[in-house]
Amino acid sequence: MGIILPPESFDWRIKGLPATWRGDAEALAGAGLSVLNEDLMLPAAVLRRSALEHNSGWMKRFTERTGTQIAPHGKTTMSPELFAMQMADGAWGITAATPCHVRAYRAFGIDTIFMANQLVGRENIAYVAAELRDNPGLDFYCLVDSMRAIDLLEAGLSATPAGRRLQVLIELGIPGGRTGFRDNAEALAAAERIAASPHVCLRGIEAFEGIIQSLEVAERDAKVDALLQRIVRLGEHCHDAGLFSGEPILSAGGSALFDRVAETFGAARKERPFLVLLRSGCYLVHDSHFYRQLIDQMEARSPIAASLGDGLRPALEVWAYVHSRPEPTRVIAGLGKRDIGEDVARPMLLAWVRPGPGAAPLPVDDTHRVMRLDDQHAYIDVPADSPLQPGDMIALGISHPCTTFDKWKLLYIVDDALVVTGSVRTYF
Amino acid sequence: MGIILPPESFDWRIKGLPATWRGDAEALAGAGLSVLNEDLMLPAAVLRRSALEHNSGWMKRFTERTGTQIAPHGKTTMSPELFAMQMADGAWGITAATPCHVRAYRAFGIDTIFMANQLVGRENIAYVAAELRDNPGLDFYCLVDSMRAIDLLEAGLSATPAGRRLQVLIELGIPGGRTGFRDNAEALAAAERIAASPHVCLRGIEAFEGIIQSLEVAERDAKVDALLQRIVRLGEHCHDAGLFSGEPILSAGGSALFDRVAETFGAARKERPFLVLLRSGCYLVHDSHFYRQLIDQMEARSPIAASLGDGLRPALEVWAYVHSRPEPTRVIAGLGKRDIGEDVARPMLLAWVRPGPGAAPLPVDDTHRVMRLDDQHAYIDVPADSPLQPGDMIALGISHPCTTFDKWKLLYIVDDALVVTGSVRTYF
Repeated sequence: MGIILPPESFDWRIKGLPATWRGDAEALAGAGLSVLNEDLMLPAAVLRRSALEHNSGWMKRFTERTGTQIAPHGKTTMSPELFAMQMADGAWGITAATPCHVRAYRAFGIDTIFMANQLVGRENIAYVAAELRDNPGLDFYCLVDSMRAIDLLEAGLSATPAGRRLQVLIELGIPGGRTGFRDNAEALAAAERIAASPHVCLRGIEAFEGIIQSLEVAERDAKVDALLQRIVRLGEHCHDAGLFSGEPILSAGGSALFDRVAETFGAARKERPFLVLLRSGCYLVHDSHFYRQLIDQMEARSPIAASLGDGLRPALEVWAYVHSRPEPTRVIAGLGKRDIGEDVARPMLLAWVRPGPGAAPLPVDDTHRVMRLDDQHAYIDVPADSPLQPGDMIALGISHPCTTFDKWKLLYIVDDALVVTGSVRTYF
Repeated sequence: MGIILPPESFDWRIKGLPATWRGDAEALAGAGLSVLNEDLMLPAAVLRRSALEHNSGWMKRFTERTGTQIAPHGKTTMSPELFAMQMADGAWGITAATPCHVRAYRAFGIDTIFMANQLVGRENIAYVAAELRDNPGLDFYCLVDSMRAIDLLEAGLSATPAGRRLQVLIELGIPGGRTGFRDNAEALAAAERIAASPHVCLRGIEAFEGIIQSLEVAERDAKVDALLQRIVRLGEHCHDAGLFSGEPILSAGGSALFDRVAETFGAARKERPFLVLLRSGCYLVHDSHFYRQLIDQMEARSPIAASLGDGLRPALEVWAYVHSRPEPTRVIAGLGKRDIGEDVARPMLLAWVRPGPGAAPLPVDDTHRVMRLDDQHAYIDVPADSPLQPGDMIALGISHPCTTFDKWKLLYIVDDALVVTGSVRTYF
């Protein structure tokens, strides 16, 4: 299945383009624009093609060796060009978070959509029902975590029939967590009701284990394993009771612990015909902090992950200018909250360049630290002997991709000389 | 001067629209869409027209009574529809933060642009120079805070001539702060050099006093007054030394302390012909927390602010569905970091609605508290006897407008019955 890339002409609506640029993606890819030659109105976001291709191959090998499928979470990038790369790698489908994501995915021509969320609201339900009714090839899934939600779906699907049963998975959750049944007995009652419904059918059991964070590693892993085991037990029970329609799905897997998911669900799959579905969204772009640490941990604990060769590489950098050095140990740069995420940690300096003939990036050590972001400014502490001056360019690594991608309508694809060879659009 | 509203047809690219909507702004305004009737794919952001009109009139009266001009900071909303409202109220121009903002403002037909930032980088300087060269009616200003920045501007303007001198203001700053000369003697040396330059000319003195926060009120006010006095002293000196070109500008004024700016600069204006330029960006939309408290303080200390009648009103709300109530005291709603800002404080519940015939908003008290935002989910603590259930709609107030506006390409204008009567676009 080919991904449809919406035709767009780029202009002043898109920050980071050259000043008077007008043209399409093909023209942009062929213009020979160079970050180092100051061809762009910085700040601008770039993706290193070499890292994207490496990460893409890494995950392809991981899913092949573990016998799992992946529906990468599209909320990370919302980019049809990156979805096309993931589908070409054999992705089972793309995961969505909201009905508006589903609507965008449909515009991209995606036919297998796993909405890892409850489907709530008259217009949201009516939209999905109409898509199902009008597109027999659409394979759509969403979650249920309460009897009330089943009532609402049944009422909505009575009012706006889908022409077939809506495929749902039961979501499990943990005390103090996000959505999901806390109790397997309540979840089983919901599963039985779904199996008997004329409007919905039961396709699997799932959870988002990624909310289990901020704990000491052994405690985190124990809680994750307990949640995954609850999914397996409920899945086995529903399978043996004949509650599932079609090949039952066991799904979990943020971007940090999918090795545990693959192992636990893979063991269950030896006994019953489960489809094991991972949903990692961040592996393709990766980052320079949060997932870097978590994937390092994975490689230390997982023989399969360790067997895949070099681990994931950070693909995304944001480039900006130094605007001011008003004090010997304080630099102010021209990027801020509008350009780069800081929800997990602040961005970190990777390199700097003094523009001019033959300009080349030089490394920056961790004595240079981003201390604060305003909307459009970064406050950076530097040693008194730092070379940085107004007019210098700096590259910042990100701590977490999800909250940097949504700051950009277009990100450049660059080669390792920072020459633009392509671009990706986002549709948040 | 009329604002140009870029013609756009709205479709799946814009979250929060009805599912199959295609049409322009005029059609959207006339479709009779209702939040309460669940016509929208929530989450969606709405602006109450009554609050916008009230706030617009409030600031018009404030600037008239204080003899000040205002160039509202456009970075808050990046919305040509709201800029049109501000220009119609008599705004002197619109303030920008980046060269990409300037490029958008030019597309909106704005001729007076105050870029409250350094102008750095080859492509950024070349763009502004070309605009100045090609558009004699363009009145553009930017800031300088180092000799190095003057070097870079002179080199850039030599390479890409603007055909006239670039108008700059000297920026003053404070120790430990953002940009700006820490020392008036260094600033004066820069002013003298600018006055003698063939490429740039000196048009005023400015600072952003809004970075002085998080202090006890009396200490904050003393620091702000000291900074404003430094601006006045340097402005007086430069005026008396004949360093300015044209009517000299004294400018400052975030959205919290513009009464102090009006008072201090207004006193200086009695002695010399200064243009006093405020730059508040948040007054029009206001908020339910950060600026609400700060404007309450202003009304308590400023007789002019107090004389203007009712203070500013929060115009912006984000509406979403309750997805789940997995524990008696925990509700999960379908909006997150992608939909609403949390950089100053988390959003707060304002109202809830049970959809159905005659549905009407009911107030929510502060026993309901947003505890955490994920990308697409909000975790809300509620009392065990809260009525909220999956499928209910909730309205959230914002703590700070700048980081909510940039989450939306389109915000609805609604009347007080939450019926859509218009929309505004954003171009971040």
